[in-house]
Amino acid sequence: MRRKIIIDTDPGQDDAIAILLALASPEELDVLAIVAVAGNVGLHHNATNARKIIELAGRPEVPVYAGCARPIRRPLVTAEHVHGETGLDGPELPAPGVQLQAQHGVDYIIDTLMAADPGTITLCTLGPLTNIAMALIKQPAIAPRIAEIVMMGGAYFEVGNITPAAEFNIYVDPEAADIVMRCGAPITMLPLDVTHQMQSTPERLAALLALGNNTSKAAHAMLTFSEAFDLAKYGWAGAPLHDPTVIAWLLRPELFSGRHCNVKIELASALTAGMTVADYWHVTGRDRNVNYLRHGDAAGFYTLLLERLARLP
Amino acid sequence: MRRKIIIDTDPGQDDAIAILLALASPEELDVLAIVAVAGNVGLHHNATNARKIIELAGRPEVPVYAGCARPIRRPLVTAEHVHGETGLDGPELPAPGVQLQAQHGVDYIIDTLMAADPGTITLCTLGPLTNIAMALIKQPAIAPRIAEIVMMGGAYFEVGNITPAAEFNIYVDPEAADIVMRCGAPITMLPLDVTHQMQSTPERLAALLALGNNTSKAAHAMLTFSEAFDLAKYGWAGAPLHDPTVIAWLLRPELFSGRHCNVKIELASALTAGMTVADYWHVTGRDRNVNYLRHGDAAGFYTLLLERLARLP
Amino acid sequence: MRRKIIIDTDPGQDDAIAILLALASPEELDVLAIVAVAGNVGLHHNATNARKIIELAGRPEVPVYAGCARPIRRPLVTAEHVHGETGLDGPELPAPGVQLQAQHGVDYIIDTLMAADPGTITLCTLGPLTNIAMALIKQPAIAPRIAEIVMMGGAYFEVGNITPAAEFNIYVDPEAADIVMRCGAPITMLPLDVTHQMQSTPERLAALLALGNNTSKAAHAMLTFSEAFDLAKYGWAGAPLHDPTVIAWLLRPELFSGRHCNVKIELASALTAGMTVADYWHVTGRDRNVNYLRHGDAAGFYTLLLERLARLP
Amino acid sequence: MRRKIIIDTDPGQDDAIAILLALASPEELDVLAIVAVAGNVGLHHNATNARKIIELAGRPEVPVYAGCARPIRRPLVTAEHVHGETGLDGPELPAPGVQLQAQHGVDYIIDTLMAADPGTITLCTLGPLTNIAMALIKQPAIAPRIAEIVMMGGAYFEVGNITPAAEFNIYVDPEAADIVMRCGAPITMLPLDVTHQMQSTPERLAALLALGNNTSKAAHAMLTFSEAFDLAKYGWAGAPLHDPTVIAWLLRPELFSGRHCNVKIELASALTAGMTVADYWHVTGRDRNVNYLRHGDAAGFYTLLLERLARLP
Repeated sequence: MRRKIIIDTDPGQDDAIAILLALASPEELDVLAIVAVAGNVGLHHNATNARKIIELAGRPEVPVYAGCARPIRRPLVTAEHVHGETGLDGPELPAPGVQLQAQHGVDYIIDTLMAADPGTITLCTLGPLTNIAMALIKQPAIAPRIAEIVMMGGAYFEVGNITPAAEFNIYVDPEAADIVMRCGAPITMLPLDVTHQMQSTPERLAALLALGNNTSKAAHAMLTFSEAFDLAKYGWAGAPLHDPTVIAWLLRPELFSGRHCNVKIELASALTAGMTVADYWHVTGRDRNVNYLRHGDAAGFYTLLLERLARLP
Repeated sequence: MRRKIIIDTDPGQDDAIAILLALASPEELDVLAIVAVAGNVGLHHNATNARKIIELAGRPEVPVYAGCARPIRRPLVTAEHVHGETGLDGPELPAPGVQLQAQHGVDYIIDTLMAADPGTITLCTLGPLTNIAMALIKQPAIAPRIAEIVMMGGAYFEVGNITPAAEFNIYVDPEAADIVMRCGAPITMLPLDVTHQMQSTPERLAALLALGNNTSKAAHAMLTFSEAFDLAKYGWAGAPLHDPTVIAWLLRPELFSGRHCNVKIELASALTAGMTVADYWHVTGRDRNVNYLRHGDAAGFYTLLLERLARLP
Repeated sequence: MRRKIIIDTDPGQDDAIAILLALASPEELDVLAIVAVAGNVGLHHNATNARKIIELAGRPEVPVYAGCARPIRRPLVTAEHVHGETGLDGPELPAPGVQLQAQHGVDYIIDTLMAADPGTITLCTLGPLTNIAMALIKQPAIAPRIAEIVMMGGAYFEVGNITPAAEFNIYVDPEAADIVMRCGAPITMLPLDVTHQMQSTPERLAALLALGNNTSKAAHAMLTFSEAFDLAKYGWAGAPLHDPTVIAWLLRPELFSGRHCNVKIELASALTAGMTVADYWHVTGRDRNVNYLRHGDAAGFYTLLLERLARLP
Repeated sequence: MRRKIIIDTDPGQDDAIAILLALASPEELDVLAIVAVAGNVGLHHNATNARKIIELAGRPEVPVYAGCARPIRRPLVTAEHVHGETGLDGPELPAPGVQLQAQHGVDYIIDTLMAADPGTITLCTLGPLTNIAMALIKQPAIAPRIAEIVMMGGAYFEVGNITPAAEFNIYVDPEAADIVMRCGAPITMLPLDVTHQMQSTPERLAALLALGNNTSKAAHAMLTFSEAFDLAKYGWAGAPLHDPTVIAWLLRPELFSGRHCNVKIELASALTAGMTVADYWHVTGRDRNVNYLRHGDAAGFYTLLLERLARLP
């Protein structure tokens, strides 16, 4: 059965790879739309990047919406130091020919969920959770209609990246993350604990380039740009690859393992704001609201990724 | 010049008096619409009450919108212990004949501000600030287009009512209040410091009833219902009258005095959540974002109120 | 019956007046010792000032101890802008001839309470509560032995002075205040709500000077120095007189009125740190741990003060 | 050169092993005294346990002091569910024959540091940091006289044990930990990140028992008691061994590695209270106040431990 998904994203090189992976998997995934949100860079760039990516993948008919340009209550924090000025530095991609949809992304999410049969639409989030939270506040009736929220975000054993205690996507809009965590919909979380295992080693990057199609060349250029920051920071053999794990989990959940446990978002303290406090060891009595993934099969993940990207133009 | 206003409200007996005062002042105030928000009671009741009030005032053509049914991130706290189950207990008012507008109240606010000339529309808020904050997040471009936000809410010298440190309207959605306080639009605040001076003594209530029109009889029934809680709590000669001060300030600003100073909203602590920390004595270097009113002329206020309510059916 | 008291203080001009008032009332008060604490200025100055004051009062036999030189966990905040560099600017007082006691003030408090019959010793605190809290942590058994803690500190309706939400004595060491508030001993609190009523008008200052004795001349010089800050800030007819209310309450409790209610100290938030959240209206179910005084008879207070200071050399 | 150490502790089976390891290493370590603090169980038990251990080790001349019976401002949290009712359940040890020292442990620490040459005394902390923090508040002059503070406590990559975000020793008295972290003395931290690597596997426990001396039999009985909780929780091959890493690091620092980085203690939030936020990746500009150890050589550690325990009676 094809799974209907909406991808909410701030592309971002790794967001781009995730979108490509989804678009390369039409037998399993029906990408209804891509909704941009402010995050890695400002909304304008993200909405442009999303359109570049669908055109790169030869799928210009996928509608792209712009959602929120700012987090709920905190000033926008961006990450040009990782992603470059455009958010998608690396390859030379043409300016997009397709137009943004006129409707606000938040309203698109609400209307689509309200119009569809309950439990038929999955939200895949690759950036801050602003749009999803805004939709939940504006129309609370969507919560029980969401099939699942599958998100890249958070960290527990890897703790944080943008601060010592917080992962970027959650840190940018922790109030949004808190709203989503408590909305009652099923949530699967792909945290740094998993994505730090998915290292794009030189061998894997070489294999990506060797696919030879345009998309893979562009993907290679993206990853060789964005890896610099993490390689310098961590000293690992390869940079972590974050967002594509969301799509990989939809396609091959057996590549991942974790626990159903409680996750709460830290909001009260400046020191730890945005921390995803996972009760992984069940030491509290808090309800288990998240399928928290901790381990991933990096070899299987890259095999899947390369096999799918090879299908694109 | 007639001032164009949108009244955002959770009526509420004192909200009702405020709406009546505005509708009774058509030469000064052009009430574009009333937007309901969850607060004193749930959104459904508030949206119904708003329509009862415009019909009571003989102004059924004023459009009524429903906005948000929940605060941004906190569970909804209501005040049936003050306002009764319907939020407007006291008078027997017929079920409204007019319909709610189909558009979401948040979108009405955004669209109206974006369509009008900048600086021509004033937002009068009588309840939690959820709708205004949501509009600011969804469409940040509205902020510089708002002529002014005039709000009943907060407290400094009177400190709090729903908790020892917080006034109800701010407490219900402090994140919304924080977003509004920092939006850059001019803000005038009518806090408990003012409204606790506006006591509906038996003499003033008797004068209201003596006006003899239907509206005033209903207003009298509202206030004699809702006063019970405050009279028991404070032991004063009359209950405070809160929301009509917002409209009174638009009509007769010389009845009020205060200071331009900084107001910040407490969000981090459970003990003081929703406190409006006013730098009334300018002991910090924080920017002056609010016209904070501290004193009101109660006699002048009630004279104005009675003179205007007498004009209604 | 003479009440045995220990005065814990950071003198400070108003602390000095309080100590003088106590020393001028030997029939009612047995001042066992004075213990200095860091606060208005550093500990060294405060310990020196305390000795100057007992000598000014002709009571050099009263032992003076030095307690803690720093708050429990926050950096010391001082108030030279109010009290001058020495903390006791204004009069020219000779360097003290008596020595500081060798024992640490915290240990003096512990040992005295443990050696005396339970319920016989009252702690009068005129500064930050560091010493009292430290004694409670080091030797928890003292708590049930304290007759009463009578403190100048906090504010509810007057809210704050050093910040918009906090009074100086509590703000300097809110953790200490929190420990004391929850220690179980009876607590009477003289907050800004009371002390702001005790204004040292020109007439009252003139009457003080007219007493003609050395002590009153020095007291007059102190108050005319320290009043400058508050007169400029508040624009009142006279500056508030804070610390002597503690002693006045011991001597003439009928001059004051208030409520038994809960007081909690704000610790979690930087914005409101040190706020004394008084549940004056009993809107929470919190236990009533403090005799919170709200009103004082200023005329009666100054009559008492002048009558007693006249007895000193 | 023999290093002079004071061991501040709440024994605790693993504290006991640490004390034994220190006492078994007289050529390197001069154990000046043991100071008990409330933690794993109440102060009374801990002070008794400390004396049992020195007698078990045949070192009854080592003085034992009792320090603080409560944390600075939080209610005492204990861990009888791990350590048993006495805190040292497992072996049958005789009631101690030696007496507690009369002096308060906090004063012992102050006096010893003030009397010794600066930089000659190392504080080894195996429990909550209450005593050390109290000494720093009462006598700030000790800070520059401390050679080093070597503590078992905290966690970053292992995050927490008593809560999802906090390690027990820090959680019990986070204010104390905060005071210590900022005191300016050199600090080496042995967090869960290290101690979770030091697993007492069945083979290692068997080797301990095989040493055959009384001390090792008792140590074996201790560890087979206390391991139950962690084995059930983590499902590992052996329970972590925490406190002896402090002594092992003094004896064989080459067994450990880590980074000099900033560590701050979370105090503001109930959700994450007591978290040791380590800036391990240097993503903030905070000063490097802690030698944060992350890795330990478990085989080398157990070799050292067994070699030393074999020397005891």
